[in-house]
Amino acid sequence: MPYYTPARIGMPLADVDTPALILDLEAFEQNLKRLNDSLAGRGVQLRPHAKSHKCPEIALRQMALGAVGVCCQKVSEAEAMVDGGVSDVLIANEVVGAAKLARLAALAMRAKIAVCADHPDNVMALDAAARAADVTLNVLVEVNVGANRCGVEPGAPALQLAQQIHACKNLHFAGLQAYQGGAQHLRKTEERRAAIEAACEKVNRTTALLTAAGIPCERVTGAGTGTYMFEALSGVYHELQTGSYIFMDVDYAKNDWTESGMPRFEHSLFVWATVMSCPAPDRAIVDAGLKASSVDSGMPRVFDTPGVEYIKASDEHGVLKLSDGVALPLGHKLKIVPGHCDPTVNLYDHFVCVRHGKVEALWPIAARGALL
Amino acid sequence: MPYYTPARIGMPLADVDTPALILDLEAFEQNLKRLNDSLAGRGVQLRPHAKSHKCPEIALRQMALGAVGVCCQKVSEAEAMVDGGVSDVLIANEVVGAAKLARLAALAMRAKIAVCADHPDNVMALDAAARAADVTLNVLVEVNVGANRCGVEPGAPALQLAQQIHACKNLHFAGLQAYQGGAQHLRKTEERRAAIEAACEKVNRTTALLTAAGIPCERVTGAGTGTYMFEALSGVYHELQTGSYIFMDVDYAKNDWTESGMPRFEHSLFVWATVMSCPAPDRAIVDAGLKASSVDSGMPRVFDTPGVEYIKASDEHGVLKLSDGVALPLGHKLKIVPGHCDPTVNLYDHFVCVRHGKVEALWPIAARGALL
Repeated sequence: MPYYTPARIGMPLADVDTPALILDLEAFEQNLKRLNDSLAGRGVQLRPHAKSHKCPEIALRQMALGAVGVCCQKVSEAEAMVDGGVSDVLIANEVVGAAKLARLAALAMRAKIAVCADHPDNVMALDAAARAADVTLNVLVEVNVGANRCGVEPGAPALQLAQQIHACKNLHFAGLQAYQGGAQHLRKTEERRAAIEAACEKVNRTTALLTAAGIPCERVTGAGTGTYMFEALSGVYHELQTGSYIFMDVDYAKNDWTESGMPRFEHSLFVWATVMSCPAPDRAIVDAGLKASSVDSGMPRVFDTPGVEYIKASDEHGVLKLSDGVALPLGHKLKIVPGHCDPTVNLYDHFVCVRHGKVEALWPIAARGALL
Repeated sequence: MPYYTPARIGMPLADVDTPALILDLEAFEQNLKRLNDSLAGRGVQLRPHAKSHKCPEIALRQMALGAVGVCCQKVSEAEAMVDGGVSDVLIANEVVGAAKLARLAALAMRAKIAVCADHPDNVMALDAAARAADVTLNVLVEVNVGANRCGVEPGAPALQLAQQIHACKNLHFAGLQAYQGGAQHLRKTEERRAAIEAACEKVNRTTALLTAAGIPCERVTGAGTGTYMFEALSGVYHELQTGSYIFMDVDYAKNDWTESGMPRFEHSLFVWATVMSCPAPDRAIVDAGLKASSVDSGMPRVFDTPGVEYIKASDEHGVLKLSDGVALPLGHKLKIVPGHCDPTVNLYDHFVCVRHGKVEALWPIAARGALL
């Protein structure tokens, strides 16, 4: 349990202790709506990625607006979602190891569960775990559509794995996982569009082989916040896995969005920080360092405070560079936008949900630290 | 609470689930001993920094070997240490804001507590909080000795703040905090030595003024794993705040240690990871990405496995580059050394303590996420 909670319900934002993870509910709700509106009538389903928020409260709100379920990356994340009332989870990742597979199979007794595979040994292990628990597991073949991380190559290798799954008594071949993670942060709209066109070609090549082999491919799933409209319009993807759109971090905000067909998402996620030292006219120090805001994708950005730049993070400190004539008094609180939302959320136990400057709720980040 | 615990006591390491944070007790105990031995007869006291481990079990072991107490960076960290039985904590940092100051003063009723200050308004607030709780707080002046983060400038500004503290009814001026954080990772021994010499000059200039003003400076405290022997031999520092020596991460291992007088510290902290995908002959994917091993100071390093390099981290995946002829089977488990120990520890709820290949204990990381 956290040693201390930064806020009480009803408290003005100004009184919330720091560092705290603030969720601006108005911006958050607008982001939910804008993504949904942008997909209206496109004939694709939404399955947002819960690795970004790790919070059943958010997952349930996404599903209330029409999402068919969520994605997770880990079995423990999926357990947290199911415990929180989420009825349909795709683990958009491989699960390896007997302990995890037993938990995965047990979870399939409580909710609709699917998982990815990219290796014949893993398929055998999935089948054995499903058999031991007397369940049928839905298994998608992960295809490498350009990110060069996990996944079998498109075409014949993917077909072969699908055939193996299809032949397993306790597995159901549930389609293709085709996420182009390497495309999400290509800065230019045209680069991202081209990367997804290339991914679609790889998927089409694979589904053609599946059809020829008489194996129905019921679902092609993938996409992220940086590209989802291209997948939505492709005629190839059935399901979209956007995660970060609800928060919009600094890294995604650096993308060019013009002529992408995608709406503008607002920053809704902030680290609330206090100026704890004013050691020089051009420098102030805040109490939010890299244990409060992940720096793997670059520095956070100070929100709504002109002339102030977050230039350096150490474990518990952030160094702000102040422009000429700008001063921040000791104790001043400000919002910073995380460089990368997912690992930042993973540092906290609660979202402090704020509306009209007041704390409306504390939503537990139930899957915080859910690594297994 | 964590959703799932990766290990049981008595379990062989091979059966520990992944990712898990492994503490090799033999290496850890050697590191404790080597630091202590290297300081024997030097006339300095040891006050290890608990921000690295956040674990009272470790703090108590450090104190059992002679440490006078620990340092923390946050009030909530200090609360976790005191709850765990630590009797003496220096918050080697400024504490700003009424809520935190009230908790700090309350903590001073339960243990010996000291804190730093670098601003006159903060000194007034500390005095008011101490008065409200009817305690005396020990306050050190933080001096900027070259890191250019927090701290007043040496000499007259430091004297002035010390005089203000000295005059406060509920504060006791307890010395100077003089940590040269910018020196710790200068790669060459001579650069680090020179940086500490410059820091000592700044401290001496300040203590001379304090003496002339009749204000006793009972303690000069600072130093980190990269430089502590220079502070120990300086005749200027009384107390050393080394933290990372117990673990030895990749970033510290890159320092040159020759002719430093400092012992070799062993890697004792590892992320235990599983090969979860074998998509290409030159690439394997492990289940430990940047939510399992912080990458703020560079990539982790694969331990004891020649020809395998950890080249890229995403949220839940690590990409390993395999040299020609090297293959890692699916499900293979390996140790990776974190790039930076402090923020990596902060991602976990337990140290899985291993001796002779068996789990001996699970030590709770009680101050994990203690940001406030």
